[in-house]
Amino acid sequence: MRVLIGNHIDPAIRDRGDLRAWTQRLLWFAQDGDLIVLCDVPDPRFLAYVTALTGVDPASLHVLITPPGRFGGRLLDPDSLTSHQFLDAAREALTASDTRQVEEVFALWPSASVALFAAALGLADRFPGAAFVAQSGGELGNNKAAFRALAAGAGVPIAPGAVCRSASEAIDATSTLLSTAGAVVVKQAHNGAGVGNQLLVRDSMLAVDHVGARHLHHLDPGPDAIDVYWQERWDWASGEGRFPVVVEEFTPNATSLYSEHYAADTGTRPTEMGTLLYVCRRLSHQIVPLRDVDDKVRAQLLDGGTRLAETWRALGYRGHLSADAIATPDGRVLFTEVNAQVSGSLHIYQVIAHRIVDTSALPERSVVEYHVPPTWSVPDADTFFAALTELGCAWDANNRTGVIVSMPIVPLQPGLAQFVFCLAYATEADRQTVWERLDARFATVPASAYSASDHVGTPVHFAS
Amino acid sequence: MRVLIGNHIDPAIRDRGDLRAWTQRLLWFAQDGDLIVLCDVPDPRFLAYVTALTGVDPASLHVLITPPGRFGGRLLDPDSLTSHQFLDAAREALTASDTRQVEEVFALWPSASVALFAAALGLADRFPGAAFVAQSGGELGNNKAAFRALAAGAGVPIAPGAVCRSASEAIDATSTLLSTAGAVVVKQAHNGAGVGNQLLVRDSMLAVDHVGARHLHHLDPGPDAIDVYWQERWDWASGEGRFPVVVEEFTPNATSLYSEHYAADTGTRPTEMGTLLYVCRRLSHQIVPLRDVDDKVRAQLLDGGTRLAETWRALGYRGHLSADAIATPDGRVLFTEVNAQVSGSLHIYQVIAHRIVDTSALPERSVVEYHVPPTWSVPDADTFFAALTELGCAWDANNRTGVIVSMPIVPLQPGLAQFVFCLAYATEADRQTVWERLDARFATVPASAYSASDHVGTPVHFAS
Repeated sequence: MRVLIGNHIDPAIRDRGDLRAWTQRLLWFAQDGDLIVLCDVPDPRFLAYVTALTGVDPASLHVLITPPGRFGGRLLDPDSLTSHQFLDAAREALTASDTRQVEEVFALWPSASVALFAAALGLADRFPGAAFVAQSGGELGNNKAAFRALAAGAGVPIAPGAVCRSASEAIDATSTLLSTAGAVVVKQAHNGAGVGNQLLVRDSMLAVDHVGARHLHHLDPGPDAIDVYWQERWDWASGEGRFPVVVEEFTPNATSLYSEHYAADTGTRPTEMGTLLYVCRRLSHQIVPLRDVDDKVRAQLLDGGTRLAETWRALGYRGHLSADAIATPDGRVLFTEVNAQVSGSLHIYQVIAHRIVDTSALPERSVVEYHVPPTWSVPDADTFFAALTELGCAWDANNRTGVIVSMPIVPLQPGLAQFVFCLAYATEADRQTVWERLDARFATVPASAYSASDHVGTPVHFAS
Repeated sequence: MRVLIGNHIDPAIRDRGDLRAWTQRLLWFAQDGDLIVLCDVPDPRFLAYVTALTGVDPASLHVLITPPGRFGGRLLDPDSLTSHQFLDAAREALTASDTRQVEEVFALWPSASVALFAAALGLADRFPGAAFVAQSGGELGNNKAAFRALAAGAGVPIAPGAVCRSASEAIDATSTLLSTAGAVVVKQAHNGAGVGNQLLVRDSMLAVDHVGARHLHHLDPGPDAIDVYWQERWDWASGEGRFPVVVEEFTPNATSLYSEHYAADTGTRPTEMGTLLYVCRRLSHQIVPLRDVDDKVRAQLLDGGTRLAETWRALGYRGHLSADAIATPDGRVLFTEVNAQVSGSLHIYQVIAHRIVDTSALPERSVVEYHVPPTWSVPDADTFFAALTELGCAWDANNRTGVIVSMPIVPLQPGLAQFVFCLAYATEADRQTVWERLDARFATVPASAYSASDHVGTPVHFAS
């Protein structure tokens, strides 16, 4: 059996709002007999739904809830994981099965608190990369600024740009890049799904909305525009000086790809590739496996991803990681970040695509995971599941097509449930048809009702 | 020929005061025909002195001074290095010799500005590790917090401790360590020679003065003492939140050692080992080579240093690095930091000990480099050199013993020159005898006149 921990990036690095629903994706990884650690009681309907699909006996799972801690249970407080109270509960839970039977401690995010937790239970040797993680290696391995240095060191292609430690350095880097490019992307070291990115545009033709940059800023034409921008945004970009800031040349019309890998003591291996799609500068959906991509692009993605995985292995990181990249219109692959954590893709490909849908079997199937868009109004799970049946797009195991909801549907406000769901499909036309049916049913919020920069429904934002 | 750059840690990472004299140690590395870049005109007497000892023709050297920049020439402003004005001057200087003849760009600190400078001159391929350094790899490679994660990942022994990103994490780590240890060391991520370290003592028997921690704090016996300490010191330790903070168990009665290595594209090689000695919690002197040390300690130092060098090579760093460690009274070697830069030791061993003194020849010689202690009052270079002759301890090339002054003697205040000087000697008794003679001559400042925490004479503090 394993100990699975539904945590997330440490609050001391990045402050999240409420991840109770999102961290329940942990349940996709559960196997018979596992001990599941969550910050809140899982949605019973979702637990039953997931285990029915994965073939796990829900009665065999032992679910432990951490004390509410500083975040009232909305987040998993790292201190709660190592509190005497919780360690006693974990020891008691493990007594039944004997700690020697624990095969692995598996956490969504490589927090030092997990290393402390594992050590306190005598399981440090069962937590891959424990020594590195115990010394805050998780921060290092997930920092977009450190990424640029490590990628450059590994000879992996990245976009022209710089890592800045002061507004003055950011002004210099921005000026240099904008002397030849029409736009730059400003990136916080720690954020996800484009929420920490701002597209800074001098050429307004580049103010596009299919990119992973939630925020958009048009530079004034004046000579002081760059200085003024950084006076206003340095504190935001750097977390008030806490972290370095990435300033990168923006590549128009690129597609977003990723290559996931597993770093073990003995070496690394690629696990899956996929593509991310942005609508209105918001992560809209991702598709696995990666199909219909040029062989040369695929080879570059695999090669760069493998080299990055090997570098992360040399750092001391062990576990799953995602190497994210863009493919330019002229066929070059430029890497953008590494997420050394259980990304928002692992449950999609490892469990849903590979095990449930079996995307390697014939006839060919692909899996897309959609974010419920801000234009939809889904009141609750009953309504959504009823619509799936009514519209003929519920999951059909025989045909290996249809919708699999991948996190609990929990309305945060009346009428406004934000969640992600997968769709297994045969062709792009099929995918489009199902999407349009669902969109016709649920899109009742006018697009003008929200801004692309708005933070709608915190739980659905990817940790990756 | 080579381009040698007398820079130092980027001011955006660590603010230094005045390094004009200290960065002139660059002159030890000069060879015939080199282009030397400094932030201020070098002391002509020191230039003549160094080149006479290294056998370099001073007329063959081309010295370029960077524009004064934001620091009035007291520091080498990274922006000055890449200003149009300076790049034009560098191009002109290189035209005479043809850039194809430039074998290497060599900088004291791996600043992104050096990578930009090299790229602007078409010399990026002559600057080892340019790609990594261009993306601020220098910060990563010299960060004491990142060190702990990387060392743990490489399986290299470190003291028990933690890397903290908030006062709350620091309180937890301090409480845990002090439940079994009598003292902890608090370390800023970026500082040197113990100036960024504070020894935090619960057991007053451990308030010792031979350690590399300039600052000392006695914890009150009360239950809130740790909280109170961190409320007061978190901003200092973290640079107002800019960097993580290391909290480590203090090991009493340890000795400080280092193993230096060179990381090349083809592999790494050890270059020298030495020992550092602290007096009144201030770096007093260092000795090369490492003699009279237990074989097991030497083997651990070489093994750990080599593994760290290989990890830094995997990061993408190229060049000299120092792996610093302590040897505990029971014979364990625990590593404390890596300095991925030209340390304050390289000129001592590579040039003075290996080339001038030849410590590998017989009869056996060692080299110590002393910091002029705060109890000494040396008015100027003339007085010091006259005293060396008078006291019979001037450098004697035939006997391979005596004093070699390793940086310019420039009084910052009347009667108060702060500098470092080497002494080549045969036996420990000889070393002690010379030291006592010099101390008797120059120690006129009562020890009570300064505090161990005081910053006396900024230029003499090690960058390493």
